[in-house]
Amino acid sequence: MSEAAIELARRSRGLAEADFTEELRIPSVGTLSRHREDCRQNAQWLLERFQRMGMDASLHEYGSGHPTVQAEWLAAPGRPLLTIYGHYDVQPPDPLQEWISGPFEPAIRDGSIYARGACDNKGQHLSSLKAAEYAFATGGPALNLRFLVEGEEEGGGEVLPHLLKTEAERLRSDFVFIHDGTLLQLLTGLRGNLYTEIEVTGAAIDLHSGAFGGLAPNPFNTLALILAGLKDRTGRVLIPGFYDAVKDPSPEELASWSTLPINEEMLLQLTGAPALEGEPGYSLLERNFTRPTLDVHGVMGGFTDEGSKTVIPARAAAKVSMRLVPDQDPFVILEALRRQAETLATPGTRVVVKQVGEVAWPILLDSQHVGIGAASRAFEAAFGQAPFLVRAGYSIPVVSDFAANLPDSKIFVSGFSGEDDGAHSPNERMVLDNFHRGTEMVLHLFDELAEA
Amino acid sequence: MSEAAIELARRSRGLAEADFTEELRIPSVGTLSRHREDCRQNAQWLLERFQRMGMDASLHEYGSGHPTVQAEWLAAPGRPLLTIYGHYDVQPPDPLQEWISGPFEPAIRDGSIYARGACDNKGQHLSSLKAAEYAFATGGPALNLRFLVEGEEEGGGEVLPHLLKTEAERLRSDFVFIHDGTLLQLLTGLRGNLYTEIEVTGAAIDLHSGAFGGLAPNPFNTLALILAGLKDRTGRVLIPGFYDAVKDPSPEELASWSTLPINEEMLLQLTGAPALEGEPGYSLLERNFTRPTLDVHGVMGGFTDEGSKTVIPARAAAKVSMRLVPDQDPFVILEALRRQAETLATPGTRVVVKQVGEVAWPILLDSQHVGIGAASRAFEAAFGQAPFLVRAGYSIPVVSDFAANLPDSKIFVSGFSGEDDGAHSPNERMVLDNFHRGTEMVLHLFDELAEA
Repeated sequence: MSEAAIELARRSRGLAEADFTEELRIPSVGTLSRHREDCRQNAQWLLERFQRMGMDASLHEYGSGHPTVQAEWLAAPGRPLLTIYGHYDVQPPDPLQEWISGPFEPAIRDGSIYARGACDNKGQHLSSLKAAEYAFATGGPALNLRFLVEGEEEGGGEVLPHLLKTEAERLRSDFVFIHDGTLLQLLTGLRGNLYTEIEVTGAAIDLHSGAFGGLAPNPFNTLALILAGLKDRTGRVLIPGFYDAVKDPSPEELASWSTLPINEEMLLQLTGAPALEGEPGYSLLERNFTRPTLDVHGVMGGFTDEGSKTVIPARAAAKVSMRLVPDQDPFVILEALRRQAETLATPGTRVVVKQVGEVAWPILLDSQHVGIGAASRAFEAAFGQAPFLVRAGYSIPVVSDFAANLPDSKIFVSGFSGEDDGAHSPNERMVLDNFHRGTEMVLHLFDELAEA
Repeated sequence: MSEAAIELARRSRGLAEADFTEELRIPSVGTLSRHREDCRQNAQWLLERFQRMGMDASLHEYGSGHPTVQAEWLAAPGRPLLTIYGHYDVQPPDPLQEWISGPFEPAIRDGSIYARGACDNKGQHLSSLKAAEYAFATGGPALNLRFLVEGEEEGGGEVLPHLLKTEAERLRSDFVFIHDGTLLQLLTGLRGNLYTEIEVTGAAIDLHSGAFGGLAPNPFNTLALILAGLKDRTGRVLIPGFYDAVKDPSPEELASWSTLPINEEMLLQLTGAPALEGEPGYSLLERNFTRPTLDVHGVMGGFTDEGSKTVIPARAAAKVSMRLVPDQDPFVILEALRRQAETLATPGTRVVVKQVGEVAWPILLDSQHVGIGAASRAFEAAFGQAPFLVRAGYSIPVVSDFAANLPDSKIFVSGFSGEDDGAHSPNERMVLDNFHRGTEMVLHLFDELAEA
C-alpha cells in the first residue's frame, strides 16, 4: 500500500509545503504567556487536520499547561500500535535582529524553509502527519496509529507526563517513535541532567574589602574553592562516589560509533575553542555519550557592572549542572554533591545546595528491538542511507516519561532535522527535501512495523 | 588666641549648625552627571565662605572634572604652613527607601544630623572651615593656612592630583591634614589597592552543555580553578612572589594596636559571619593593616536568571582586587598575577588579566613627626582623650598623591566621623557634639602646630 501513498506524497509536495507554512505562521512560543492563545490555536489546527483524515482526535488538558493533541486510529485489529510523539511549542525567537526573514513569516531560500519551529518540531511532526494523511487517502495505514503532540516540550511541561502516568494502560503501544531527533541518527540512550544552585553565605551584610579584607570570609573565594573541588583540571569529576554506578558501553555500541563522521578537528572548528577538554582515557564520543560530567553555567552575587566596587558580598551562588549516565541516580549524586560542597566550605561560610527544576533521568534504550531494524530500513528506503545508532549527550525528558509509563513499548528516537538546521537559534530552518523524504520514510515505517 | 576663638565657637554652635544644614542641602553627588551643577554650586558655596573670612580663594579646574576649591592665607611669615584637605562630593544616596528623612533634607534626631555627606565629608571639612572662621574673627590663626577641598573623591578624580603634580612647588606645606578619617584615630599607613578583571575565554560561541559537555572547555570551571589557585583555604595568597616585599610592622606600632578596643567577638557581631577568616599566624589588626590579601567581588558571564539554562559560555570573567601593603609594587604584583593565572588556565581556554581603574599605592606615613604629637594633644584638649595610632586596611588614594608630590610635608590623616556614622550608607549622620568639638580640636591644632 505504501506505493500508492508515496506516489500521492510525491504529487502533493506543493500542498504539503503550503500546510507547513500555515503551521509555521502560528507563533506558538510555549514559555511566553502572551502566546498562550497562539499555542491553543496550534493545538486546534492540528486537531482539525487529524479529524479531517478520520482519526479520533481530542485535546488533553491538565493544570495551567498547553493542551496535548491526541489522535487515534485503532481499526487494524491484530496489527501493532505505533505512537508518534511530537511537540508544537517553539522556543522564543530572540535575538530578532539576527533573523534574515521574520521568525513567524516562513520564507523559502535555497531549498530550505526558514522560520522558528521549522525543524524543532513542526517540520518533524508535520511530516508524520502528512504520512498518515496519505496513508488514509490510499486505503488506510497497515497498523494502528496514535499521535501525541504536546505543547510544552521547550518549557518542561506537565500535561503529557500526567496523561502518560494516569492513562498508561489505555496508552499502551507496541512502538513509540519519539519524533524529535536528528536525521540519520537513531538514539539508543540519552544522558540525564541534574541542575543545581550552590549558594555560599558569609557575613550577614555586604562588607568593604578595605575595611574587612583579611578578616571576613568572602563567599566568592570559597565558592571558587568548592567549584575547583568538584572537577579537576583534566575534566574528571571529584565528587566522591560520582562514577560508582557508571556503566561502560557495549562493544557493539563502541563499534557503531567508530564509523560516525565526528572527529576532533571537526569539533574544534565547530566550537572555535583552542583545544577540546574532557575526561582522559575516553574517546570523544564516549565522553559525550557515556561519561557523566559537570558544568558551571553562571555565578550570581556581588558586583558585575563596569568598573570597580570593592565589595565582599554576603552571598554568592553558582548554577551547576551534571550530565548523568546509566545507572547514576540523580538523587544519590545530589546528596554526594551536598557532602562534597560542605566539606569544601571554609569556616566563615555556610553552603546550601538546591536542586533547580526537574531531574532528567539518564536512559539506555534497547538498541536491538525490531523497531530499530524497521526504522533503519525505512530510512534507507527514503534517504538511501542507513542511520547511525548513537546515544545523545543531551537529555529529552519525555523519553524517560514514555519508558517509565509504557515499559512494554519499543521506543526509538529519531527525526529529519539536520545538525546545522539551527534549532533554538535565529534562522532556524528545515531542508524541504528532508521534510518530504521524511514523509516517505514514515510511510515505509508504517509498512515495516506492520510486519514486525 | 585659641581661647577667644574657642569661646566664639561655643557661642556660635547654632549658627554653625545652620551653615552645616545649608551645605548638606546641596545634592553634590559627584559621580552622577545630573548633579554636575550641584557640585559646582557646592564649590561656589565654599569659595564664598573662604573669601568672606579674608582668605585668598579660587576654583581650580582640569579636564571635565568638578572644581577643587583652594583657599590660602599666607600672612604669618616664619610660621609653618598647614594644608587641610577635604572633599565636598558625596556618594549617591541609594537605596532611597531606607532613609528615615530625605538624604538632602538634613534632620536632627537625638543629637545627630542626618543627611548624605554628614560625616563623609561635609561635617569634617566644615568643622575645619568653622575653626578658620573663628580664628580669623579673633585675630587670625597663629600659622599659615591653606584649604584644598576637592569634588571628586568618591569617583577617583583628576583635578586635585593634576594640581598637586603641576604646582607641587607652590603647594609646599609643612603639614598636611587629610581631614577624611575617623574620630580618635591617627592613620600611620594605608593599604593600597590593585583592581583587576580576569577573563577566561573558551569556545568562540556559547555551547549547549548536553551537546558539548565532556568535550568543550568551560570558562567558568577554569575560572574557578584559577581563583582557587590564587588564595588557599586558610587565606594565604598563592601568587608566587606575592609576599616578597611585605614588611613587618614596627614593635611600636604593634604595641599601640594592642590597646585598640577591637577583638574577634566585636568583628563577628559586626559582620554576622559564622567565623572570621584570614592568613594564619597574624593578629586581626595585623591581617587588616599590614598583610596583603585578595578578594573576588563578582563573576560575569553565562546564565544568572531564575531557573536553568544549560549553557557553556564562550566567556567568563571575575573582578578581583588585591589590598597591598608597603613595599609591594602593584605593577610587579599585576605581572605575577598574570603569570599565575596563565599557569592555571586549562588547554582549551585563554586567560587575560586586565587592570581596572587606577592603582592605589600602599603607603606608610611617618608616625613620629611633630604633627602627630600636636594632633594628639589637640584631640586630647577637645575630646578629653588621646587618639590611637593605627593603619587602615582601606586606601585613600589622595594620601599617596600628597606624599608623592609634597615629599617634605608631614602628613597626618584623621577626622571626627564615628565608625557607626554610616558613611556611604542610608541615614548617614554626624554626631553634632563631635562636629563642634572637632572645630575646637582644629583650633587647638592651629596653636600646637604654630609652636611645632
